[in-house]
Amino acid sequence: MAMAFSALTPVFIAIICVLIGIILKSSRKGTEKKESTPNQKAESRPWVDEDLKDSTDLQGEEEDDGGEWQGLDDDIAHIPFMTERYSEEDMVKRSKDLYTLLNKRRSVRFISDEPVPREVIDNVIKAAGTAPSGAHTEPWTFVVIQDPEVKHKIREIIEEEEEINYQKRMGDRWVNDLKRLRTNWIKEYLDTAPYLILIFKQVYGMHPDGKKKTHYYNEISVSIACGILLAALQNVGLVTVTTTPLNCGPRLRVLLQRPVNEKLLLLLPVGYPSKDATVPDLKRKPVDDIMVVI
Amino acid sequence: MAMAFSALTPVFIAIICVLIGIILKSSRKGTEKKESTPNQKAESRPWVDEDLKDSTDLQGEEEDDGGEWQGLDDDIAHIPFMTERYSEEDMVKRSKDLYTLLNKRRSVRFISDEPVPREVIDNVIKAAGTAPSGAHTEPWTFVVIQDPEVKHKIREIIEEEEEINYQKRMGDRWVNDLKRLRTNWIKEYLDTAPYLILIFKQVYGMHPDGKKKTHYYNEISVSIACGILLAALQNVGLVTVTTTPLNCGPRLRVLLQRPVNEKLLLLLPVGYPSKDATVPDLKRKPVDDIMVVI
Repeated sequence: MAMAFSALTPVFIAIICVLIGIILKSSRKGTEKKESTPNQKAESRPWVDEDLKDSTDLQGEEEDDGGEWQGLDDDIAHIPFMTERYSEEDMVKRSKDLYTLLNKRRSVRFISDEPVPREVIDNVIKAAGTAPSGAHTEPWTFVVIQDPEVKHKIREIIEEEEEINYQKRMGDRWVNDLKRLRTNWIKEYLDTAPYLILIFKQVYGMHPDGKKKTHYYNEISVSIACGILLAALQNVGLVTVTTTPLNCGPRLRVLLQRPVNEKLLLLLPVGYPSKDATVPDLKRKPVDDIMVVI
Repeated sequence: MAMAFSALTPVFIAIICVLIGIILKSSRKGTEKKESTPNQKAESRPWVDEDLKDSTDLQGEEEDDGGEWQGLDDDIAHIPFMTERYSEEDMVKRSKDLYTLLNKRRSVRFISDEPVPREVIDNVIKAAGTAPSGAHTEPWTFVVIQDPEVKHKIREIIEEEEEINYQKRMGDRWVNDLKRLRTNWIKEYLDTAPYLILIFKQVYGMHPDGKKKTHYYNEISVSIACGILLAALQNVGLVTVTTTPLNCGPRLRVLLQRPVNEKLLLLLPVGYPSKDATVPDLKRKPVDDIMVVI
């Protein structure tokens, strides 16, 4: 009996050791998530997962920034700063006029196929490019699609993924929320809008030595640039609807041949509103609900 | 031998089963991370951690949105959409003029204590409040500080935390990056600027029944609003510097008595530039480096 025990033990000990090994490995994985750098992450992960996680991984990094965005190398000279100075009267008028203009902006999903001058698109994107960014990394890429075939491919990818999301990825909560949002799989504007602007955030950059360079606050920076872009579009009478195609980032990135350090943040179909365009009768919060003075 | 085997087997089988159970449990943990709601997260967590993690937790949720931002309840009526229509010539001119104005914007850290009309601040924040937001949640709170004592308390908290960050929280990589960023602990503008605008993102809201309501894309939405705010400030000749006070969010939230669902996103000191204001001689990327046309 004892003899049989000692004879058999090695077999089971071996099995147990293997299992313990698996436990340790899988539990270590969990903690590594937070520690490992975005570089390591970018590789070893399937694409859907990557799309879902990368910005969160970086978030942790981003929180560890120095706070000041005005990053500069020590050798950058400082120069006197000049700016327009308006009378208080002008300031009040200019601020009121801009508010009045922007307050007319609405997200419009009915976009006419009427052509829009390219120069205008160039200028609104140049305006967006004046946004501040963490350590002046300017971590944005604006991909402007005017080719009808590419626009249609984008539409196919987005409608396909949304159906998958609906059927497989979402829990009851999401389905209910989506009902509330009256989400519409059919996105005709992706074909009709003369331009689709896909905004990518560069989640990291490259040092001259080829090492990856963290782009602090890349998502906040690119979103700020998009805010300026939306104001610039409204300023010329063009409309758009702010969309974040769910889980399509990687496929669209590949379709548009963008590098792996770029992640899709927003997609904006841009054009004139169609003749019969309607918008939901939504109201905005009064200023007292969004502003507190101390 | 065979008998001994069958006698001993149950013992080891039991051990093996327990180990397999542990493996399954620990691997399930991993997936649960994504499923759990922000509600569960919001509680059980120390504040620094909370500040560092909440937006990442939500990010996962946010990625699970329906894509379209134009959320509306089924009972909201649609109304015809009207908008200004400009000639192509006007569009080109307006887009060029806005770019020229915004391209003069710089992050300025030398801010004069000269008073600024409150009405202007109200208008730029009203302009920021016209931003789109996920499911029209308008998840932003703009806290405007004009009380000198509160401004000074804010300065003390920020300078204190930055020293702690420098000494304890940051690894060599951060210290090196910070050297590169020539970060300055001393933030005089927090005292001198006539206004400090602290922008909070509401990471969740409340349903009438008191249940927490996910604010999809709250960070992107609030950042977009900040982009509009920066454009509106530039439009009236005021300056600011975009800052993200590291780890100060919770202390500032408590100081300003903001609810727990609000997290500090950005702090903008706002005023006229001081006479001797300088800025680093930075250039922006040419449009061809940020724009791709297909």
